[in-house]
Amino acid sequence: MPDTAPRGMAMINAFDPAAAPALSPRERAMVERRQRLLGPAYRLFYEHPVHLVRGDGAWLFDADGKRFLDCYNNVASLGHAHPRVVEAIARQAARINTHTRYLHDTVLDYAEALLATLPPALGHVMFTCTGSEANDLALRIARAHTGGEGIVVTSLAYHGVTASLAELSPSLGEGVPLGRHVATVSPPDAYRGGPDMPARFAADITRAFAGLARHGIRPCALLVDTMFTSDGVFPDPAGFLAEAAAAARAAGALFIADEVQPGFGRTGRMWGFERHGAEPDIVTMGKPMGNGHPLAGLAIRPELLERFGSRARYFNTFGGNPVSAAAGLAVLDVLRDEALPANAARVGAHLLAGLGALAARHAILGDIRGAGLSIGAELVRDRATKEPATAETARTVNALREGGVLISASGPAANILKIRPPLCLSTEQADLFLDTLDQALAAG
Amino acid sequence: MPDTAPRGMAMINAFDPAAAPALSPRERAMVERRQRLLGPAYRLFYEHPVHLVRGDGAWLFDADGKRFLDCYNNVASLGHAHPRVVEAIARQAARINTHTRYLHDTVLDYAEALLATLPPALGHVMFTCTGSEANDLALRIARAHTGGEGIVVTSLAYHGVTASLAELSPSLGEGVPLGRHVATVSPPDAYRGGPDMPARFAADITRAFAGLARHGIRPCALLVDTMFTSDGVFPDPAGFLAEAAAAARAAGALFIADEVQPGFGRTGRMWGFERHGAEPDIVTMGKPMGNGHPLAGLAIRPELLERFGSRARYFNTFGGNPVSAAAGLAVLDVLRDEALPANAARVGAHLLAGLGALAARHAILGDIRGAGLSIGAELVRDRATKEPATAETARTVNALREGGVLISASGPAANILKIRPPLCLSTEQADLFLDTLDQALAAG
Repeated sequence: MPDTAPRGMAMINAFDPAAAPALSPRERAMVERRQRLLGPAYRLFYEHPVHLVRGDGAWLFDADGKRFLDCYNNVASLGHAHPRVVEAIARQAARINTHTRYLHDTVLDYAEALLATLPPALGHVMFTCTGSEANDLALRIARAHTGGEGIVVTSLAYHGVTASLAELSPSLGEGVPLGRHVATVSPPDAYRGGPDMPARFAADITRAFAGLARHGIRPCALLVDTMFTSDGVFPDPAGFLAEAAAAARAAGALFIADEVQPGFGRTGRMWGFERHGAEPDIVTMGKPMGNGHPLAGLAIRPELLERFGSRARYFNTFGGNPVSAAAGLAVLDVLRDEALPANAARVGAHLLAGLGALAARHAILGDIRGAGLSIGAELVRDRATKEPATAETARTVNALREGGVLISASGPAANILKIRPPLCLSTEQADLFLDTLDQALAAG
Repeated sequence: MPDTAPRGMAMINAFDPAAAPALSPRERAMVERRQRLLGPAYRLFYEHPVHLVRGDGAWLFDADGKRFLDCYNNVASLGHAHPRVVEAIARQAARINTHTRYLHDTVLDYAEALLATLPPALGHVMFTCTGSEANDLALRIARAHTGGEGIVVTSLAYHGVTASLAELSPSLGEGVPLGRHVATVSPPDAYRGGPDMPARFAADITRAFAGLARHGIRPCALLVDTMFTSDGVFPDPAGFLAEAAAAARAAGALFIADEVQPGFGRTGRMWGFERHGAEPDIVTMGKPMGNGHPLAGLAIRPELLERFGSRARYFNTFGGNPVSAAAGLAVLDVLRDEALPANAARVGAHLLAGLGALAARHAILGDIRGAGLSIGAELVRDRATKEPATAETARTVNALREGGVLISASGPAANILKIRPPLCLSTEQADLFLDTLDQALAAG
């Protein structure tokens, strides 16, 4: 395989339960209650976990009334508790909430509106409740169509938590083994990989499918987050994804664009693959799709669904129910009426410029990159060696939290600030983020 | 393997698109629009699909204002559009909807209330959005704990639609292959299997795990719906499930009770396994858990989670979010305040007695069985030979639909009426069902 698997790693920005004694009595009691009730597999964010009770736009409020600027959560993308989505959910829930084995107009209206945002070749949509279910279904369909099993993902990819997705999500760490049918490739990292990266990324994919074939594993799909979010946010140069998709297709595999994180306007365009001029065979989507309501799904070229549809029926009890469809429609309406993709592009450009200005004063900011409001800022100890500033990144994330700004980090060395505010972020809020970051970096 | 796999089968009670020309222009347009937008894997119920627009208690209303008595849907178990659940969802959605990596009280209050309904040995609960995700997670945990992969299910089981569950859900048909690590056993059918069935069911499980072991596949879990709903509804004699669980444990496997369909009061008790005195290692749950809101999860003995929790973290973006938790709490409150499990027991007994009286006049009713409001009525052409009355069952289900009552069918010969009304069904509504069934059977 052309790539080295990432080292076993704890979760980035996780609260360490050993630090519980330093918390307030109320927080400590909540942490202990969580461990007692939810068990050992759940994690909290931050050295000092956040106890949130209310949200409004990009603002979040904790139990003491302290205000936080949300620069991280990519689910409530329209802003927290957006009234139009809340109203759509409440109205439809009060009327009826059934499933797709009865006729209902709303799921069809929603399917039509959603497909209208996608390339015309993607003619069918199927609904699930979570991004995991969407990726899991996409793989079932891709296997049925190709007759192959071989999957190529990036070396720190995250695609979901079902059994079949955990085994192709290396970011879950060494405790969760990868499948034998899974090959990883280095992410398209233009900062560390250099200017020939895009061509090399495509070549790596070709080599990965060839390696699988050498083991008798036939090609199924290239599955990538189109912003490579958990790998460390790699958007540029726009266009490289089209080459990668072509490499996958040349190997006989499908190209599945995982838009669970980049989709619905985050990159300044509706879908992350649009920047690259890449045409996916299947697009999976989730997180912001219902602005918090559990709604996800996939869009697909109809001819790829024929074999699966002739052998298997598909039913998801809650997937595409009238309430979910109403929530999804409201999200599309708000994205359009409030021009949120354009706002993401505008405020994202402002943030990138502001981060660039900070980099002129803080040498630790080794690289700034992003598209729209999906931004990575890589912290290094030395701009020449690019040595990852891992501990400093953790300190910065936690200092921002104490300063009232919520973000997290990503990447194999956990040294990349992951900045993903709601799409409604204003220029003033962006400036507040930049000022708080400036102070955090100055404090070291 | 001790069982013969079921024949390849189309979905029971599915609409045949070839019959679209017989529909009204509006219905035909909706069916065509569905096929165009959602593709070939989706199915509708009934020869004449139902176009529902409103629900209230056990009543459903179609676009023409026609009223249907819902005797089938096991999701809106409290009754359709229950105002207390709608209000809980609307109120919390308007306030905040985040996730389990921040502290929040509601998910903990809900976890505590839910665990209080379960045996004390089940100390941890984990939240997902769908029953599929709950079963998928249960299997990941069971594999981590046992180190084995071997799964035993019943021969027409349904446990979900993720890749790892489809391969152990034989009810999906021959187009969806079973995994090599999956063995099936005949369901505990006291009608066709005779009085020694319970002991034989346990013996079959022992033999199935032995057969897996002979192929080098170590034991992982016995996974059963505690009412065997898709196999044909097999509740009696109460107690046999404890023997089956003991057989699984003796083989070194865990016993996972799939309560996605029987749970939350349907059988007249909170959980289906209670009738049997069986103590599961893991309980999975879903469908009625949020009365339509996408909410599911599992409860587990804490010691079984240690290995998984030490190697893998678990995060489900929407699972256990504050809105889901508020919906789940409201469901538990309504179950208690409206004494719905007791109502299910009372009205279920009334239905069983009424079906028994119908059987005295309709020889086609070969067997009546159930617990609470989970009822199966098996139609046979001859009570001596027990020849399945498959075509007659389909006619009856469709005649009931035309008569304003919604049910469906199950079992390998599709000859078992599956009757699962909301738990709020009144005696008068039960009598309306019985009268409508009487007429349908009389009409042949």
